[in-house]
Amino acid sequence: MTDESPQERWQRRIEIPMFAASALFLASFTVRVLAENLPSGWYALCEAVTYASWALFVVDYAVRWVLSGEGLAFVRRHLMDAIVVVLPLLRPLRIVKIYEAVQRRHTHARLPLQARVIAYAGLSTLLLGFAGALSVYHDEHNAPDATIKTFGDAIWWTSSTVTTVGYGDMTPVTPRGRVVAVGMMVGGVALLGAVTGSFSSWLLQTFAQDEEKKPPGGTPGASDGLRP
Amino acid sequence: MTDESPQERWQRRIEIPMFAASALFLASFTVRVLAENLPSGWYALCEAVTYASWALFVVDYAVRWVLSGEGLAFVRRHLMDAIVVVLPLLRPLRIVKIYEAVQRRHTHARLPLQARVIAYAGLSTLLLGFAGALSVYHDEHNAPDATIKTFGDAIWWTSSTVTTVGYGDMTPVTPRGRVVAVGMMVGGVALLGAVTGSFSSWLLQTFAQDEEKKPPGGTPGASDGLRP
Amino acid sequence: MTDESPQERWQRRIEIPMFAASALFLASFTVRVLAENLPSGWYALCEAVTYASWALFVVDYAVRWVLSGEGLAFVRRHLMDAIVVVLPLLRPLRIVKIYEAVQRRHTHARLPLQARVIAYAGLSTLLLGFAGALSVYHDEHNAPDATIKTFGDAIWWTSSTVTTVGYGDMTPVTPRGRVVAVGMMVGGVALLGAVTGSFSSWLLQTFAQDEEKKPPGGTPGASDGLRP
Amino acid sequence: MTDESPQERWQRRIEIPMFAASALFLASFTVRVLAENLPSGWYALCEAVTYASWALFVVDYAVRWVLSGEGLAFVRRHLMDAIVVVLPLLRPLRIVKIYEAVQRRHTHARLPLQARVIAYAGLSTLLLGFAGALSVYHDEHNAPDATIKTFGDAIWWTSSTVTTVGYGDMTPVTPRGRVVAVGMMVGGVALLGAVTGSFSSWLLQTFAQDEEKKPPGGTPGASDGLRP
Repeated sequence: MTDESPQERWQRRIEIPMFAASALFLASFTVRVLAENLPSGWYALCEAVTYASWALFVVDYAVRWVLSGEGLAFVRRHLMDAIVVVLPLLRPLRIVKIYEAVQRRHTHARLPLQARVIAYAGLSTLLLGFAGALSVYHDEHNAPDATIKTFGDAIWWTSSTVTTVGYGDMTPVTPRGRVVAVGMMVGGVALLGAVTGSFSSWLLQTFAQDEEKKPPGGTPGASDGLRP
Repeated sequence: MTDESPQERWQRRIEIPMFAASALFLASFTVRVLAENLPSGWYALCEAVTYASWALFVVDYAVRWVLSGEGLAFVRRHLMDAIVVVLPLLRPLRIVKIYEAVQRRHTHARLPLQARVIAYAGLSTLLLGFAGALSVYHDEHNAPDATIKTFGDAIWWTSSTVTTVGYGDMTPVTPRGRVVAVGMMVGGVALLGAVTGSFSSWLLQTFAQDEEKKPPGGTPGASDGLRP
Repeated sequence: MTDESPQERWQRRIEIPMFAASALFLASFTVRVLAENLPSGWYALCEAVTYASWALFVVDYAVRWVLSGEGLAFVRRHLMDAIVVVLPLLRPLRIVKIYEAVQRRHTHARLPLQARVIAYAGLSTLLLGFAGALSVYHDEHNAPDATIKTFGDAIWWTSSTVTTVGYGDMTPVTPRGRVVAVGMMVGGVALLGAVTGSFSSWLLQTFAQDEEKKPPGGTPGASDGLRP
Repeated sequence: MTDESPQERWQRRIEIPMFAASALFLASFTVRVLAENLPSGWYALCEAVTYASWALFVVDYAVRWVLSGEGLAFVRRHLMDAIVVVLPLLRPLRIVKIYEAVQRRHTHARLPLQARVIAYAGLSTLLLGFAGALSVYHDEHNAPDATIKTFGDAIWWTSSTVTTVGYGDMTPVTPRGRVVAVGMMVGGVALLGAVTGSFSSWLLQTFAQDEEKKPPGGTPGASDGLRP
């Protein structure tokens, strides 16, 4: 525990504050987008909180870059973090990491491997979908010829997009909305593919274990020892 | 056999009655939704059966909770059962478990592993699709601007949704219909992913076995011993 | 070779005639559906060939059933064959088996495992798609409000359905067309899932081999011995 | 290094020129399709460059065929190359191979196996999508009843097609556009399936490693030695 690098110490200490900043960013951005009749004082506050959190993300990234002592290799190795600095709406995806850390400490990794991947990828999909729905609603709802007019529409469109169902009863019509949509398609395909693949592998494993346990009959303890 | 816990004994004894209750729930709900010109006496009977079965699900859950002696951990470990208590239309999915149990006793697990996963996930998809189609038809068919007007439409829409084809020639327009639809998309992606993954793994294994059997030529008995 | 059962001998002898019957069935059905201005003599011939081939499928199934000496277990174990007797348009899928047999004899299984699964599932998808397009075109093109009006439309609709893209610019509107469509969605999902899964596994294996070959440097012969 | 065959020597020497030819082909084709108000001199130049690069692809294929000393087996073993000669717009997919070669030399294969498959398949999808969007835009934008009217529309349609979302708000209406579209659906399903499968397998592996590292507690060096 004592031999942690400065970078690790920074990351450990900043974890909770950054978690709070991510939550604040998402909350203030959500309020700004959804609450259209907000008194201007509150609107300004939300805007301030949004930009302050964003600034924190930039500072955190810069500090970790400096502490790492690496050059451009740092950017390449922490590509996801660089993306988050540019597209802060994706930052809450890191909340998932916190969930995972908490879950590991608390329950001694009681969940099987696949269940954790499903939880991780599923939670990421939810956050990505929410951020995407917010962003698309923001870009679309005032556009002429828009089909996505309410936030409910945006959620419905997001669900059909991320699962690759794609009804097409509502589609973004603005260039920015479409760029976000393409990101959501790609992210949705990858994340839901991980959920699906893990679920399938978990089902196969569960059925295989069932079979193993039955035949030996009298000594279920042996296999229990291998897989508690 | 004699060292089963009270919980296991309860589950063994209640299995058949609960199976009947699940079937009754699905049947009475189906009749109530589809038979619009039902005489009011029959309608009341269906309603009574529906709620009585639902009450049974709640009682079963409560008894198992008490017998388990666990606190909130029980809810977390039997999440699927808790969902079933709130959304009883998903209860018939447990019928699949019965099928599996019967199949195991009867045929000594003659079906290969992947075939059983395909049968399990495929049957679950069918039941989920039927329950979803019923529910969406119930919510939609009287809505203004509805595109899903007959139960046939609901089945057609369900097929295109669960397989993620998503033509979009019919889509739910009511909030409740859309919530059910999102559940079906997610369930469909996961279950059909399991079917697909297992089928793919089964094909690969079959082809690999074909190859193995050929080269040795004279001694097919050896590999037969490994894989009867 | 001399210890083959009567069933195996029947299957070996009937293989080529049944292959011809499958091809004739598909060809005569195709001509009947697509060539609308056929002189009535030719039309009757096509019809006769279609039903004669179908009768052959039934005879083949009956003979194999009798030879097997099994009761209803035969139907359960040869489910695909029973389906083919009821839906003869799926019979050409067995052509794929012939292709596989020929390919195995001819090239000493030079193609890697995954490539064979891709070829098998891909060919099955093509045949399933062609049979489905024919059948849907047959049911749809004269229906009022039909969107699938030419065979080209049917092929375009089939492609978007089997790959689960599902544009929805054309959709079947008749009940029979929709039943066939549901079968194609399910078949498409399963078969293309097998293609995709095998392709993915083949890519991973190819990249892993590339890596293995590099590091040892001087002795590429060793790994070549394992994987020619 | 000295025992390379004539074929290998040709391939090593021609690699960079062919890379340049591929890039030129893509660039000149892109300019020809997108820049509608090009002065006729520039247009003729682009056309010349396009056909000259195409001629180079044919020459390269012919030389390699002759050097291989194989007959028709060469075509069967290098099917992708034959396809590229007929459909030169797919040639840039080989650029991905260069990327891979460079990446391997440069970074000693630092990226894990799955990341390389993701990068390879992802890059292929991007190139396939760009080439497909160009080609469909070329065929569609002047067609009557076309819904794909600008190159932006083509990109949007491509994204929804390759990810199998398939909104259907825009669809090709010309026969040639549809043939290209079918190729993109199939390619998209296969390539994105590879991306998804690798991502899923990478997630599972990462989570499994996390678990492995934790329990032993004091000796993280041991597992680090296995997986640097």
